[in-house]
Amino acid sequence: MDNFNFCSPTEFVFGKDRENECGDLVKKYGGTKVLIHYGSGSAERSGLLSRVEKSLEEKGIGYVKLGGVKPNPRDTLIYEGIELCRKENVDFILSVGGGSCIDSAKGIAIGVLYDGDFWDFYGTGKPVEKALPIGTVLTIAAAGSEGSGASVVTKEDGMLKRDTGSDLLRPKFSVLNPALTQTLPAYQTACGATDIMAHVFERYFTNTKEVEITDRLCEAVLLTMIKETPRAIREPQNYEARANIMWAGTVAHNDIVGVGRSQDWNSHGIEHELSGLYDCAHGAGLAVIMPAWMEFVYKHDIMRFAQMAVRIWGCEMNFHNPEETALQGIRCFRSFLHDIGMPINFEELGAKAEDIPVLVEKFGIKDGKTGGFVALTADDVTKIYTIAANATL
Amino acid sequence: MDNFNFCSPTEFVFGKDRENECGDLVKKYGGTKVLIHYGSGSAERSGLLSRVEKSLEEKGIGYVKLGGVKPNPRDTLIYEGIELCRKENVDFILSVGGGSCIDSAKGIAIGVLYDGDFWDFYGTGKPVEKALPIGTVLTIAAAGSEGSGASVVTKEDGMLKRDTGSDLLRPKFSVLNPALTQTLPAYQTACGATDIMAHVFERYFTNTKEVEITDRLCEAVLLTMIKETPRAIREPQNYEARANIMWAGTVAHNDIVGVGRSQDWNSHGIEHELSGLYDCAHGAGLAVIMPAWMEFVYKHDIMRFAQMAVRIWGCEMNFHNPEETALQGIRCFRSFLHDIGMPINFEELGAKAEDIPVLVEKFGIKDGKTGGFVALTADDVTKIYTIAANATL
Repeated sequence: MDNFNFCSPTEFVFGKDRENECGDLVKKYGGTKVLIHYGSGSAERSGLLSRVEKSLEEKGIGYVKLGGVKPNPRDTLIYEGIELCRKENVDFILSVGGGSCIDSAKGIAIGVLYDGDFWDFYGTGKPVEKALPIGTVLTIAAAGSEGSGASVVTKEDGMLKRDTGSDLLRPKFSVLNPALTQTLPAYQTACGATDIMAHVFERYFTNTKEVEITDRLCEAVLLTMIKETPRAIREPQNYEARANIMWAGTVAHNDIVGVGRSQDWNSHGIEHELSGLYDCAHGAGLAVIMPAWMEFVYKHDIMRFAQMAVRIWGCEMNFHNPEETALQGIRCFRSFLHDIGMPINFEELGAKAEDIPVLVEKFGIKDGKTGGFVALTADDVTKIYTIAANATL
Repeated sequence: MDNFNFCSPTEFVFGKDRENECGDLVKKYGGTKVLIHYGSGSAERSGLLSRVEKSLEEKGIGYVKLGGVKPNPRDTLIYEGIELCRKENVDFILSVGGGSCIDSAKGIAIGVLYDGDFWDFYGTGKPVEKALPIGTVLTIAAAGSEGSGASVVTKEDGMLKRDTGSDLLRPKFSVLNPALTQTLPAYQTACGATDIMAHVFERYFTNTKEVEITDRLCEAVLLTMIKETPRAIREPQNYEARANIMWAGTVAHNDIVGVGRSQDWNSHGIEHELSGLYDCAHGAGLAVIMPAWMEFVYKHDIMRFAQMAVRIWGCEMNFHNPEETALQGIRCFRSFLHDIGMPINFEELGAKAEDIPVLVEKFGIKDGKTGGFVALTADDVTKIYTIAANATL
């Protein structure tokens, strides 16, 4: 096991009706003037926004509002948010929405306290030194941003999707009310589930040996997702399925299942170019990319893929030919994604094989290789996109 | 799933040589004058204490020392610690030792800032309102106190073992260096492992339905312990086995595997009377009590015990007679404990069946029942002690 530091200080406030505690929570973490940041009108229409506002008002906390966050959140709205926060002396940002909304809020939180351009921190590794405190009310289980220090933002000019990360961006609190996800359409539910599973797989495929505890914790989250996702799609109102998925989504990405081991994250990077270029859902892009990535890299560690097949997908181990078991596991994953309504190739996603050179160019490996489980050259990435383009069940 | 709040703000600093960062860590969390609290002379003899002192000195942090913490830590030393801290204006307590040392440090942390007797908070439910900040350097994987808000202390007068809990008692940081546990004798290693497994089982047996994610996380920790414990006993110097056990021990008790569900904790309570009366190791007491408790309560939810048997112990499900599978799982647990060198009955533990009335009396159910998976009367507790007294493989 590798040396590591782990600190997840976010207070998770989980369960029915917990959004009514926002006023108390903002107060507890020192907020006096809040930016409520949200996405589409659904938070308004459902009455969620009113409940949050009422909770703030009851504690005498002032607020301003900024809606309009889109999936793959844009830098343009973040600039708007930064200006608004400065003008209104906002000292706490409350995201009411999904991962895109939280990531946008994190961008604003960085920008308000930074003299330069907040974009300086995205895709550059420049360390974040200050940020406004953030709280979240989560409306979709997917990104894990409610417990993580990560933020992914798309620069409108050129549709560049880049990320940053810092423990300073971990929310002070996150309200997780599974009931808020009961109205999600099946497609969005499945996209979220795919993202959650991908967060675990990016950690599962490691070159660090002897990490049984985090292997087992990864498998725990994946087994839960395999059980609960089809149930949430069949029975959208099933609170218990929604609750299990929601907590799994947080555990999948606050890094408790990933510490002490090298991780991969190439599938996320490769996917970001798809959702950047086509503005498709991140989860849908991952459904196309991740099994293709697995097929490209599995020979690097056949026994690890066999472990996935046996422990996660319930395959029988072929002791005579482990490679067959490894490949069976990858097929099970793709079939599962298809069954929950995810695309499995470029056509189903709405992507075009002829764009592959553009995607590889934007992914931006000039010389050298990526890091990760298997370091990839630009040629490797081309091959992965090509497998993804043509995949079948 | 039940509503819950979860917050585990401790910074875990995991890996080889990390104790050399104590100076930086104490400084980061605001300490200027430290009480180094430790147990036996082994921390001195191994050079660990000197390394910690050197690290503090390098950062210009003053300290005083108080050693002598015993297993089942006593109130008497805590009073001494409180006095010393007040006299020396200590503002940070650094425990260098195992769970007993941390629990003693927590008692001191409460007492220094409280005008009355620190014992007021133990076994009474009185909420802790203030405590000095604590850091830990862990030397045995067992109690989970390095990540929890719990503290268990024994009152010398009458050997009463009682507990308290508060998020204020969660350490600011915990240094987890698995190499420090490589010198632990097999018996102590096994006692620690049993305690870790018991922390999970106390959460696993729940009346809350549909908690797949935390069920699976519990199983992940237990499967790891089943793999790694015999390896650490066979090969004490095996860093990887020690590392997996150490992180499992923290995950087992910071409550990430227990949120959203009712828990039990009767086995812990019933055991505390054994280690209180006989001053035996807590883990050894649990090895005797926990399978006995299982045998007494399993009929309350046969399918949950069958799930334990199948998922944790790898038993075949007997679909015709699930009770047989449930009982097989309990037998597997007891056999495992025996195999790692734990006692499985009163004689092996050094306890006496004729003391059962005294134990039940001290456990203190006068009227009514305990809470938990199965609420227990004094008569039930008598039966559990009796099963434990006479258990065989």
